[in-house]
Amino acid sequence: MDPFDPTPDDRFTFGLWTVGNTGRDPFGEAVRAPLAPTTIVQRLSECGAWGVNLHDNDLVPFGASAAQRDAIVREFKAALEEHGLCVPMATTNLFSHPVFKDGAFSSNDPKVRAFALRKTMDAIDLGVELGAKTYVFWGGREGSEADACRDPRTAVARMRDALDYLCEYVVDQGYDLKFALEAKPNEPRGDIYLATTGHMLAFIATLARPQMVGVNPEVAHENMAGLSFVHGVAQAMEAGKLFHIDLNAQKIGRYDQDLRFGSEDVRQAFLLVRLLEGTSGTERYSGPRHFDAHAYRTEDDEGVWDFARGCMRTYKILKARAQAFDADPAVRELIAEQRDAVLEPLCKGYSREKAAKLRAAALDPAQLAARGLRYERLDQLMMEHLLGVR
Amino acid sequence: MDPFDPTPDDRFTFGLWTVGNTGRDPFGEAVRAPLAPTTIVQRLSECGAWGVNLHDNDLVPFGASAAQRDAIVREFKAALEEHGLCVPMATTNLFSHPVFKDGAFSSNDPKVRAFALRKTMDAIDLGVELGAKTYVFWGGREGSEADACRDPRTAVARMRDALDYLCEYVVDQGYDLKFALEAKPNEPRGDIYLATTGHMLAFIATLARPQMVGVNPEVAHENMAGLSFVHGVAQAMEAGKLFHIDLNAQKIGRYDQDLRFGSEDVRQAFLLVRLLEGTSGTERYSGPRHFDAHAYRTEDDEGVWDFARGCMRTYKILKARAQAFDADPAVRELIAEQRDAVLEPLCKGYSREKAAKLRAAALDPAQLAARGLRYERLDQLMMEHLLGVR
Amino acid sequence: MDPFDPTPDDRFTFGLWTVGNTGRDPFGEAVRAPLAPTTIVQRLSECGAWGVNLHDNDLVPFGASAAQRDAIVREFKAALEEHGLCVPMATTNLFSHPVFKDGAFSSNDPKVRAFALRKTMDAIDLGVELGAKTYVFWGGREGSEADACRDPRTAVARMRDALDYLCEYVVDQGYDLKFALEAKPNEPRGDIYLATTGHMLAFIATLARPQMVGVNPEVAHENMAGLSFVHGVAQAMEAGKLFHIDLNAQKIGRYDQDLRFGSEDVRQAFLLVRLLEGTSGTERYSGPRHFDAHAYRTEDDEGVWDFARGCMRTYKILKARAQAFDADPAVRELIAEQRDAVLEPLCKGYSREKAAKLRAAALDPAQLAARGLRYERLDQLMMEHLLGVR
Amino acid sequence: MDPFDPTPDDRFTFGLWTVGNTGRDPFGEAVRAPLAPTTIVQRLSECGAWGVNLHDNDLVPFGASAAQRDAIVREFKAALEEHGLCVPMATTNLFSHPVFKDGAFSSNDPKVRAFALRKTMDAIDLGVELGAKTYVFWGGREGSEADACRDPRTAVARMRDALDYLCEYVVDQGYDLKFALEAKPNEPRGDIYLATTGHMLAFIATLARPQMVGVNPEVAHENMAGLSFVHGVAQAMEAGKLFHIDLNAQKIGRYDQDLRFGSEDVRQAFLLVRLLEGTSGTERYSGPRHFDAHAYRTEDDEGVWDFARGCMRTYKILKARAQAFDADPAVRELIAEQRDAVLEPLCKGYSREKAAKLRAAALDPAQLAARGLRYERLDQLMMEHLLGVR
Repeated sequence: MDPFDPTPDDRFTFGLWTVGNTGRDPFGEAVRAPLAPTTIVQRLSECGAWGVNLHDNDLVPFGASAAQRDAIVREFKAALEEHGLCVPMATTNLFSHPVFKDGAFSSNDPKVRAFALRKTMDAIDLGVELGAKTYVFWGGREGSEADACRDPRTAVARMRDALDYLCEYVVDQGYDLKFALEAKPNEPRGDIYLATTGHMLAFIATLARPQMVGVNPEVAHENMAGLSFVHGVAQAMEAGKLFHIDLNAQKIGRYDQDLRFGSEDVRQAFLLVRLLEGTSGTERYSGPRHFDAHAYRTEDDEGVWDFARGCMRTYKILKARAQAFDADPAVRELIAEQRDAVLEPLCKGYSREKAAKLRAAALDPAQLAARGLRYERLDQLMMEHLLGVR
Repeated sequence: MDPFDPTPDDRFTFGLWTVGNTGRDPFGEAVRAPLAPTTIVQRLSECGAWGVNLHDNDLVPFGASAAQRDAIVREFKAALEEHGLCVPMATTNLFSHPVFKDGAFSSNDPKVRAFALRKTMDAIDLGVELGAKTYVFWGGREGSEADACRDPRTAVARMRDALDYLCEYVVDQGYDLKFALEAKPNEPRGDIYLATTGHMLAFIATLARPQMVGVNPEVAHENMAGLSFVHGVAQAMEAGKLFHIDLNAQKIGRYDQDLRFGSEDVRQAFLLVRLLEGTSGTERYSGPRHFDAHAYRTEDDEGVWDFARGCMRTYKILKARAQAFDADPAVRELIAEQRDAVLEPLCKGYSREKAAKLRAAALDPAQLAARGLRYERLDQLMMEHLLGVR
Repeated sequence: MDPFDPTPDDRFTFGLWTVGNTGRDPFGEAVRAPLAPTTIVQRLSECGAWGVNLHDNDLVPFGASAAQRDAIVREFKAALEEHGLCVPMATTNLFSHPVFKDGAFSSNDPKVRAFALRKTMDAIDLGVELGAKTYVFWGGREGSEADACRDPRTAVARMRDALDYLCEYVVDQGYDLKFALEAKPNEPRGDIYLATTGHMLAFIATLARPQMVGVNPEVAHENMAGLSFVHGVAQAMEAGKLFHIDLNAQKIGRYDQDLRFGSEDVRQAFLLVRLLEGTSGTERYSGPRHFDAHAYRTEDDEGVWDFARGCMRTYKILKARAQAFDADPAVRELIAEQRDAVLEPLCKGYSREKAAKLRAAALDPAQLAARGLRYERLDQLMMEHLLGVR
Repeated sequence: MDPFDPTPDDRFTFGLWTVGNTGRDPFGEAVRAPLAPTTIVQRLSECGAWGVNLHDNDLVPFGASAAQRDAIVREFKAALEEHGLCVPMATTNLFSHPVFKDGAFSSNDPKVRAFALRKTMDAIDLGVELGAKTYVFWGGREGSEADACRDPRTAVARMRDALDYLCEYVVDQGYDLKFALEAKPNEPRGDIYLATTGHMLAFIATLARPQMVGVNPEVAHENMAGLSFVHGVAQAMEAGKLFHIDLNAQKIGRYDQDLRFGSEDVRQAFLLVRLLEGTSGTERYSGPRHFDAHAYRTEDDEGVWDFARGCMRTYKILKARAQAFDADPAVRELIAEQRDAVLEPLCKGYSREKAAKLRAAALDPAQLAARGLRYERLDQLMMEHLLGVR
């Protein structure tokens, strides 16, 4: 077997909306017929995926009756069972229906906010029924173009109210569920509140139950703004807040592309996989490897599964490359940590005595500046590992 | 007198490095002779500024002896006294000397980290001696190009160690000083850690003394990444963390331009001034209005003061425009808050009963979706106020 | 009457697809019902517009029979007549139907290229029948994500073949029609061939009938890439190639926003209107002032007309501001052209003698460098005119 | 020998200013001592480079006397001879000295324009004396921040005057030299005239001797604006205008990074090398492979040569990958050109008869739309070749 072909042990997941994307865009109509959720379950299982994620309305149409919903859920659970797939994550569609045209939790209309809250409670129930352990919040339209329409502080406060309310709901229901907040800087709104993973982490610290809430960073969303995705994910990991992740690819400064994982900025993708897999000796990210991407609009159904396999294969290739990179003695030598048994204790845990000693220490900036760091060599080694010539 | 000419009551400040900028850039040499700090004090005072800010080495050259330093400080304080200027903010230059070529607090070399810490303690002493109440941290080179050189989590942890240490130093010295952290996504490094005001707010929440530490957002720095500066500042204000602000102008997706305030994206500048001045009925930002910008390289000394006056005049023009906008009855009607006495209490402060009532409430999404929000009209009114035709 | 209210003399035009936009986007459904083309004609006329432009399928649905087409055209012409509107420009929809999913003229499939060519001939006939004098080409999907699918040189050659063919068709039919090519860097494709107005101008120079073909620059399209729209339009004007223009607003580095004219980067909008109106003493652009934008998705039908009026009003306000700016003696003094009766002739129209004299001329770079150019003052004057305080 | 180590047959060149870069940037001082040009020649030769390029002032300091110049040139030529290096390209520094602070050929000051013209004639003489066959023009500061300072059409006209003059100078001197124009969208100016390779190609078509003038596209410069570099280079090649090329790496929407070739966007670098090397069966680019990049500021002298070797090795690795990709039967099948013996002749070379037949041809858009194009598979194959697993 090809070592890069996916297996359930890799814990790869896709959203119903990803492989089910029909290719509609702002300038054109759908190019593929919709796929039934049960068909997606079967095909994902055949591809080697481990799980499938969903928005409420990916499975249950907006406005379906309780009986319709229950029938759909029953059929879907049977398909999951039959094909051995799980649903590790669920989320709410708070953006497709025109009622959310000016946002959901941050809308100026209290009725819209109420409707959004209640739709989310129902969707949480659905997710939990399907076995989800993580519940993602992507605001969608929580933003503005005409910025005078709403004080952005009010928007943040309204979103806090909603999140606090929903945390209590989950606790009250006794659900085993944590929340993962997903940031995006813009599109479909001119500017979306809480624009990056950083802003989300800061917001979480102001919630009533911060321990229940983490982040779900998405490659494309941070990349749109040209930020280092790896740095953002690392900050979340360092704070114990990486609860989920959305893998795809995107060029900087563009419309939301949701490309096949690794197909743009493969260098960053390598660094990301290295971080998640902990190949340099740190702890691995333990959650699902979720792909939030879709096939090009040039593809028919066959191309959709080319796309899905490509996402997973590239992840595994990059993992192998990261393992080899971190095992390379030339690399290990270049990144070995420097220690200074005298200075380091003086710089940590302030005391007046330490500060005095630190001020008295012999430190020659010219001498310190003279040392070359060999980062060109390190980076070239990394590229040569990535390109498979070492 | 022209109503837009600045006065000390406006609390405008400039850095020594701003009006003192000599115009050197990556492709060319200085075009203006350096100005003595005491000359800058005099000229700023004549222009109507209220204060002057500085990096340690803007005033005291790197490597100066204690005697030289004291003589320089004495002369500078005399000039401040003579011209009635204060020093509300100070900061450390941790980027110009080659010793900081791979960062200061996050450097891999413990000796460099030690040197940076001690230089900052000295610079804090200097700032406090000059009367500063706010101490700014802009990392400068705390970042990377060859990302494999350092785990980004290690970088964050090292920066936390440094900030925690320095907070204790300030407390131990009995200084009345708070810290303001300034983010920048890139330049002069490929990617800088803690890339935006959002990331900084999240980082602050992990410090040992978060209450001592806030942010110093800079227009150009958030704008480089195409993020809404107004949203970022608003999030900081909502969290009580706007301790200082750097005003200038910048095009999205470019090198660090540090242009005259309001000269690019005047719409955003209007929204910012409106937020800071609280013209919509909210609390005003009480700190200095600091300009971190410099004159075009085409200018001689005369042009530098054209530049400085322009920054301050545009701020005052925008403040007047914001006041008129928020006083306009057509605007007030469009942005009046909508209330719903039944639903709002149900959506705040979760209880099982509230949730049940919320679920039972009559809410018709189609009807809610049908209402037009008149944001085109609101935004056009805003632009017409900005352009001075209302 | 308000001096900024539009009249037909202003020669403002809108596309059927602009005020007719229903608000569908990649994340949500339509929020407004479609408007009949004849209704749009009536409402535009009431708003003070001069003309209306269209894609073939904005008026005649894809796949309509000849009889249906003729009936629709008859009714539409009657509405134009009744409301006094003209159709100065027409274009082809080569992007909505799935047949164009990989481009039209540059598709790898010769059948798709043939279909696109013939659809365009039909659409040209329609445009001419409605009185259009300018025919716009916006490629839409002439681009790629998987770049290996097609040699980009082949794409350019195919587009040349199509344009050459269609020029001959127009000549053969005896139509009084010129072509205007519209560039866009990306969206809905990852990268679109001939990405900017510059690339289009270069391409035109390689056509068989370059004199028949000019450009149709769009604010949003150049702005997406962060290029100076004013510089691009100026280069086209200098080459006699500005045949049409698409006015709207857009933030740099974002999805295609098509915002109300002047609502973002009003400084650039001012410079553009100044250029088009020739207020500094140069020739005016004589074509229609066409708006290719649409109302926010938050708007109902009423908001659409707020949007349309806003586009036109802002244009007129900026025109008035530009006239005042160029009439301001302080400005005229700062931008007066410098002359040098000796050197200028030596630098134009090379001869060996001139070169020798030029080499011998006394020129002191240090002295030349010393002069300050007062551009900070000039720019501040411009901003103060823009803000209406001079 | 490692197959990816460079040899003179690879025709790799570097600028004196690239490996000689001392690491000064807007926020810090030089970190490396300047290298003598003769040392650079020796080290480049040892690295396997073929040639070295230069600005006039990289070799001869601004303001040097004729005698100094001649001595320097003599010594430099001796070094070239000794180490077997050539100088295939030369250019003028029209940006470092303050005299060029507002541009050179487009300056408002006729004296500055005259000085720039004459400096360029001298620099052309120097280049030719050293054997250069290509002369590059990079405007540097031909742009603006305060756009009202100059009509952009005037700027273009002035640049045309200068280029036309210099073409005649070259012809008159009997030099065997062609010109290559290099575009850049911004930095060090807010906006630079003729912003992209497309704009330059259009400008060239308006010159008096267009056949003497081509382009010198630079990876970083097009990438800053997020444009497809490969598409731009391909358009130039298709027009016979790729006279030279500047290889480096750059993130979109950032300051000018001039990174090691291939170290960012290695996918685009692969596509570029594939295009230049003609591995898909097209003609190869025959000019030098020039690197316009520099080592990170973290490096000492040793790191500079790590950097130089890295540029060349990555080029060769990518060339090998491109060859394998285009030789892969799975790829060849996916990109085989589709032919249609009936339709293609009808679509090329318009005649009334062909148009009639084209209109009558049976073409079913729904059927054409249904075909999947397998671009996901093609692109994944490309990535797997790039990553070295096929």
